[in-house]
Amino acid sequence: MDEYVLRAVGRVESSLTDLAAAPKQGDEGAPEAWLVFDDTVAEALRDLAAGAEVLVLTWLDRGRRDVLSVQPRDDRTRPEMGVFSTRSPDRPNPIGLHRVTILEVDGLRLRVDRLEAVDGTPVLDLKPVLGDVGDR
Amino acid sequence: MDEYVLRAVGRVESSLTDLAAAPKQGDEGAPEAWLVFDDTVAEALRDLAAGAEVLVLTWLDRGRRDVLSVQPRDDRTRPEMGVFSTRSPDRPNPIGLHRVTILEVDGLRLRVDRLEAVDGTPVLDLKPVLGDVGDR
Repeated sequence: MDEYVLRAVGRVESSLTDLAAAPKQGDEGAPEAWLVFDDTVAEALRDLAAGAEVLVLTWLDRGRRDVLSVQPRDDRTRPEMGVFSTRSPDRPNPIGLHRVTILEVDGLRLRVDRLEAVDGTPVLDLKPVLGDVGDR
Repeated sequence: MDEYVLRAVGRVESSLTDLAAAPKQGDEGAPEAWLVFDDTVAEALRDLAAGAEVLVLTWLDRGRRDVLSVQPRDDRTRPEMGVFSTRSPDRPNPIGLHRVTILEVDGLRLRVDRLEAVDGTPVLDLKPVLGDVGDR
Protein backbone atom coordinates (compact mmCIF):
# COMPACT_ATOMS: atom_id res chain seq x y z
CA MET A 1 0.00 0.00 0.00
CA ASP A 2 1.07 3.59 -0.50
CA GLU A 3 3.03 5.57 2.06
CA TYR A 4 2.76 9.19 3.15
CA VAL A 5 5.08 11.35 5.24
CA LEU A 6 3.83 13.06 8.38
CA ARG A 7 5.71 15.99 9.85
CA ALA A 8 5.39 16.76 13.55
CA VAL A 9 4.13 20.33 14.06
CA GLY A 10 4.80 20.33 17.81
CA ARG A 11 5.37 18.26 20.94
CA VAL A 12 3.56 17.46 24.18
CA GLU A 13 5.16 18.73 27.38
CA SER A 14 3.66 16.75 30.24
CA SER A 15 4.42 15.41 33.69
CA LEU A 16 3.42 12.00 32.29
CA THR A 17 6.64 10.25 31.41
CA ASP A 18 5.80 6.63 32.08
CA LEU A 19 3.75 4.85 29.46
CA ALA A 20 2.52 2.27 31.97
CA ALA A 21 1.27 5.02 34.31
CA ALA A 22 -0.50 6.95 31.53
CA PRO A 23 -4.29 6.81 31.73
CA LYS A 24 -5.74 5.24 28.64
CA GLN A 25 -8.41 7.89 28.06
CA GLY A 26 -8.50 11.56 28.99
CA ASP A 27 -11.33 11.24 31.48
CA GLU A 28 -9.40 8.85 33.70
CA GLY A 29 -7.33 11.45 35.50
CA ALA A 30 -4.84 12.63 32.88
CA PRO A 31 -2.95 15.81 33.85
CA GLU A 32 -2.85 19.18 32.16
CA ALA A 33 -0.19 19.48 29.50
CA TRP A 34 1.40 22.00 27.18
CA LEU A 35 1.37 21.67 23.41
CA VAL A 36 4.50 23.39 22.10
CA PHE A 37 4.42 24.21 18.40
CA ASP A 38 7.09 24.78 15.81
CA ASP A 39 7.35 28.41 14.77
CA THR A 40 6.76 27.40 11.14
CA VAL A 41 3.05 26.80 11.98
CA ALA A 42 2.42 29.96 14.02
CA GLU A 43 -0.02 31.24 11.40
CA ALA A 44 -2.15 28.07 11.68
CA LEU A 45 -2.54 28.66 15.44
CA ARG A 46 -3.48 32.31 15.40
CA ASP A 47 -7.25 32.00 15.93
CA LEU A 48 -7.09 29.57 18.87
CA ALA A 49 -8.08 31.00 22.25
CA ALA A 50 -8.61 29.85 25.83
CA GLY A 51 -11.95 28.11 26.26
CA ALA A 52 -11.97 26.46 22.84
CA GLU A 53 -12.51 22.70 22.65
CA VAL A 54 -10.25 21.07 20.13
CA LEU A 55 -9.24 17.65 18.89
CA VAL A 56 -5.50 17.01 19.17
CA LEU A 57 -4.01 14.44 16.80
CA THR A 58 -0.75 12.93 18.00
CA TRP A 59 1.72 10.32 16.80
CA LEU A 60 1.90 7.58 19.43
CA ASP A 61 5.49 6.85 18.62
CA ARG A 62 5.80 4.05 21.18
CA GLY A 63 2.94 2.10 19.61
CA ARG A 64 3.69 -1.26 18.03
CA ARG A 65 2.62 -1.10 14.41
CA ASP A 66 2.70 -4.84 13.80
CA VAL A 67 -0.02 -5.56 16.37
CA LEU A 68 -3.46 -6.24 14.85
CA SER A 69 -5.37 -7.56 17.88
CA VAL A 70 -5.12 -6.87 21.61
CA GLN A 71 -6.61 -8.04 24.88
CA PRO A 72 -9.33 -5.65 26.14
CA ARG A 73 -7.68 -3.80 29.01
CA ASP A 74 -10.82 -3.69 31.14
CA ASP A 75 -11.27 -7.45 31.21
CA ARG A 76 -8.24 -9.64 30.66
CA THR A 77 -10.41 -12.74 30.59
CA ARG A 78 -12.03 -11.68 27.32
CA PRO A 79 -10.62 -12.77 23.98
CA GLU A 80 -8.42 -10.48 21.93
CA MET A 81 -10.11 -7.88 19.74
CA GLY A 82 -9.09 -6.46 16.38
CA VAL A 83 -7.37 -3.11 17.00
CA PHE A 84 -9.83 -1.20 14.77
CA SER A 85 -12.42 -1.99 17.48
CA THR A 86 -10.17 -0.57 20.24
CA ARG A 87 -8.30 2.60 21.12
CA SER A 88 -5.04 0.72 21.66
CA PRO A 89 -1.90 2.71 20.74
CA ASP A 90 -0.68 -0.49 19.11
CA ARG A 91 -2.11 -0.32 15.55
CA PRO A 92 -0.85 0.02 11.97
CA ASN A 93 -0.91 3.86 12.04
CA PRO A 94 -0.65 4.90 15.70
CA ILE A 95 -2.47 8.23 15.49
CA GLY A 96 -3.81 9.41 18.86
CA LEU A 97 -7.04 11.40 19.07
CA HIS A 98 -7.65 13.54 22.16
CA ARG A 99 -10.46 15.97 22.91
CA VAL A 100 -9.22 18.78 25.15
CA THR A 101 -10.09 22.31 26.23
CA ILE A 102 -7.54 25.06 25.74
CA LEU A 103 -6.81 26.71 29.09
CA GLU A 104 -4.15 29.23 28.05
CA VAL A 105 -2.42 30.48 24.93
CA ASP A 106 1.15 31.73 25.29
CA GLY A 107 2.62 32.36 21.86
CA LEU A 108 3.48 28.99 20.35
CA ARG A 109 2.43 27.17 23.52
CA LEU A 110 -1.09 26.01 24.40
CA ARG A 111 -1.96 24.73 27.87
CA VAL A 112 -4.73 22.12 27.72
CA ASP A 113 -6.69 20.13 30.28
CA ARG A 114 -6.27 16.40 30.80
CA LEU A 115 -4.20 14.94 28.00
CA GLU A 116 -3.37 11.23 28.09
CA ALA A 117 -0.10 11.46 26.13
CA VAL A 118 3.39 11.10 27.54
CA ASP A 119 5.99 13.87 27.52
CA GLY A 120 7.58 14.31 24.10
CA THR A 121 4.70 12.86 22.08
CA PRO A 122 4.68 14.45 18.59
CA VAL A 123 1.65 16.61 17.72
CA LEU A 124 0.31 16.25 14.16
CA ASP A 125 -2.80 18.44 13.92
CA LEU A 126 -5.47 20.39 15.77
CA LYS A 127 -9.10 20.51 14.65
CA PRO A 128 -12.11 22.36 16.05
CA VAL A 129 -14.84 20.27 17.66
CA LEU A 130 -17.95 20.49 15.48
CA GLY A 131 -21.59 20.54 16.48
CA ASP A 132 -21.05 20.45 20.25
CA VAL A 133 -19.93 16.85 20.07
CA GLY A 134 -16.49 15.39 19.81
CA ASP A 135 -14.53 12.37 20.67
CA ARG A 136 -11.96 11.66 23.31
CA MET B 1 10.68 18.63 12.96
CA ASP B 2 10.65 14.87 12.87
CA GLU B 3 8.92 12.85 10.19
CA TYR B 4 6.91 9.63 10.37
CA VAL B 5 5.70 7.28 7.67
CA LEU B 6 2.01 6.47 7.31
CA ARG B 7 0.91 3.41 5.40
CA ALA B 8 -2.54 3.31 3.83
CA VAL B 9 -4.53 0.33 5.16
CA GLY B 10 -7.32 0.74 2.61
CA ARG B 11 -9.12 3.01 0.17
CA VAL B 12 -12.47 4.76 -0.17
CA GLU B 13 -14.72 3.61 -3.01
CA SER B 14 -17.28 6.33 -3.59
CA SER B 15 -19.43 7.93 -6.26
CA LEU B 16 -17.82 11.23 -5.20
CA THR B 17 -15.06 11.88 -7.67
CA ASP B 18 -15.06 15.66 -7.88
CA LEU B 19 -13.40 17.51 -5.05
CA ALA B 20 -15.38 20.67 -5.74
CA ALA B 21 -18.67 18.76 -5.52
CA ALA B 22 -17.73 16.96 -2.30
CA PRO B 23 -19.68 18.15 0.73
CA LYS B 24 -17.36 19.56 3.37
CA GLN B 25 -18.90 17.69 6.30
CA GLY B 26 -20.69 14.37 6.45
CA ASP B 27 -24.05 15.81 7.42
CA GLU B 28 -24.32 17.89 4.26
CA GLY B 29 -25.51 15.13 1.97
CA ALA B 30 -22.47 12.94 1.47
CA PRO B 31 -23.22 9.56 -0.13
CA GLU B 32 -22.68 6.08 1.21
CA ALA B 33 -19.26 4.67 0.44
CA TRP B 34 -17.23 1.48 0.72
CA LEU B 35 -14.02 1.23 2.70
CA VAL B 36 -11.89 -1.44 1.04
CA PHE B 37 -9.06 -2.77 3.21
CA ASP B 38 -5.78 -4.43 2.44
CA ASP B 39 -5.74 -8.10 3.32
CA THR B 40 -2.73 -7.53 5.58
CA VAL B 41 -5.05 -5.83 8.14
CA ALA B 42 -7.90 -8.36 8.05
CA GLU B 43 -7.22 -9.32 11.67
CA ALA B 44 -7.65 -5.68 12.83
CA LEU B 45 -11.14 -5.56 11.25
CA ARG B 46 -12.51 -8.80 12.59
CA ASP B 47 -14.70 -7.40 15.41
CA LEU B 48 -16.43 -4.70 13.34
CA ALA B 49 -20.10 -5.27 12.58
CA ALA B 50 -23.04 -3.50 10.97
CA GLY B 51 -24.52 -0.87 13.26
CA ALA B 52 -21.23 0.18 14.84
CA GLU B 53 -20.35 3.87 14.83
CA VAL B 54 -16.70 4.42 14.04
CA LEU B 55 -14.26 7.21 13.32
CA VAL B 56 -12.52 6.86 9.98
CA LEU B 57 -9.15 8.55 9.59
CA THR B 58 -8.17 9.28 6.01
CA TRP B 59 -5.27 10.91 4.20
CA LEU B 60 -6.64 13.88 2.24
CA ASP B 61 -4.04 13.50 -0.46
CA ARG B 62 -5.27 16.45 -2.48
CA GLY B 63 -4.82 18.85 0.45
CA ARG B 64 -2.22 21.60 0.12
CA ARG B 65 0.24 21.17 2.96
CA ASP B 66 1.78 24.62 2.67
CA VAL B 67 -1.49 26.43 3.45
CA LEU B 68 -1.69 27.78 7.03
CA SER B 69 -4.77 30.02 6.82
CA VAL B 70 -7.95 29.86 4.74
CA GLN B 71 -11.08 31.87 4.07
CA PRO B 72 -14.08 30.50 6.04
CA ARG B 73 -16.16 28.70 3.42
CA ASP B 74 -19.51 29.77 4.93
CA ASP B 75 -18.77 33.49 4.68
CA ARG B 76 -16.27 34.67 2.12
CA THR B 77 -16.42 38.20 3.50
CA ARG B 78 -14.77 37.16 6.75
CA PRO B 79 -11.00 37.31 7.17
CA GLU B 80 -8.85 34.23 6.78
CA MET B 81 -8.51 31.88 9.74
CA GLY B 82 -5.61 29.74 10.89
CA VAL B 83 -6.19 26.20 9.63
CA PHE B 84 -6.04 24.69 13.14
CA SER B 85 -9.35 26.54 13.75
CA THR B 86 -10.93 25.02 10.62
CA ARG B 87 -11.63 21.60 9.06
CA SER B 88 -10.00 22.61 5.79
CA PRO B 89 -8.27 19.73 3.95
CA ASP B 90 -5.45 22.22 3.33
CA ARG B 91 -3.22 21.88 6.43
CA PRO B 92 0.29 20.68 7.32
CA ASN B 93 -0.82 17.07 7.93
CA PRO B 94 -4.04 16.54 5.92
CA ILE B 95 -5.64 13.84 8.06
CA GLY B 96 -9.41 13.60 7.57
CA LEU B 97 -11.68 12.60 10.47
CA HIS B 98 -15.12 11.19 9.65
CA ARG B 99 -17.76 9.75 11.95
CA VAL B 100 -19.78 7.08 10.17
CA THR B 101 -22.05 4.13 10.86
CA ILE B 102 -21.15 0.75 9.41
CA LEU B 103 -24.05 -0.50 7.27
CA GLU B 104 -22.58 -3.77 5.98
CA VAL B 105 -19.49 -5.91 6.38
CA ASP B 106 -18.41 -8.00 3.40
CA GLY B 107 -15.00 -9.52 4.10
CA LEU B 108 -12.41 -6.77 3.67
CA ARG B 109 -15.08 -4.27 2.59
CA LEU B 110 -17.19 -2.08 4.88
CA ARG B 111 -20.17 -0.11 3.59
CA VAL B 112 -20.67 3.11 5.58
CA ASP B 113 -23.20 5.93 5.55
CA ARG B 114 -22.44 9.46 4.35
CA LEU B 115 -18.69 9.84 3.89
CA GLU B 116 -17.37 13.16 2.59
CA ALA B 117 -14.24 11.76 0.94
CA VAL B 118 -13.64 11.35 -2.78
CA ASP B 119 -13.11 8.02 -4.51
CA GLY B 120 -9.62 6.66 -3.95
CA THR B 121 -8.92 8.51 -0.69
CA PRO B 122 -6.46 6.47 1.40
CA VAL B 123 -7.77 5.10 4.72
CA LEU B 124 -5.35 5.25 7.67
CA ASP B 125 -7.23 3.98 10.71
CA LEU B 126 -10.60 3.12 12.26
CA LYS B 127 -11.43 3.82 15.90
CA PRO B 128 -14.55 3.09 17.93
CA VAL B 129 -16.63 6.07 19.05
CA LEU B 130 -16.39 6.35 22.84
CA GLY B 131 -19.00 7.40 25.36
CA ASP B 132 -21.83 7.92 22.90
CA VAL B 133 -20.22 11.03 21.50
CA GLY B 134 -18.00 11.43 18.52
CA ASP B 135 -16.91 13.90 15.97
CA ARG B 136 -17.65 14.31 12.30
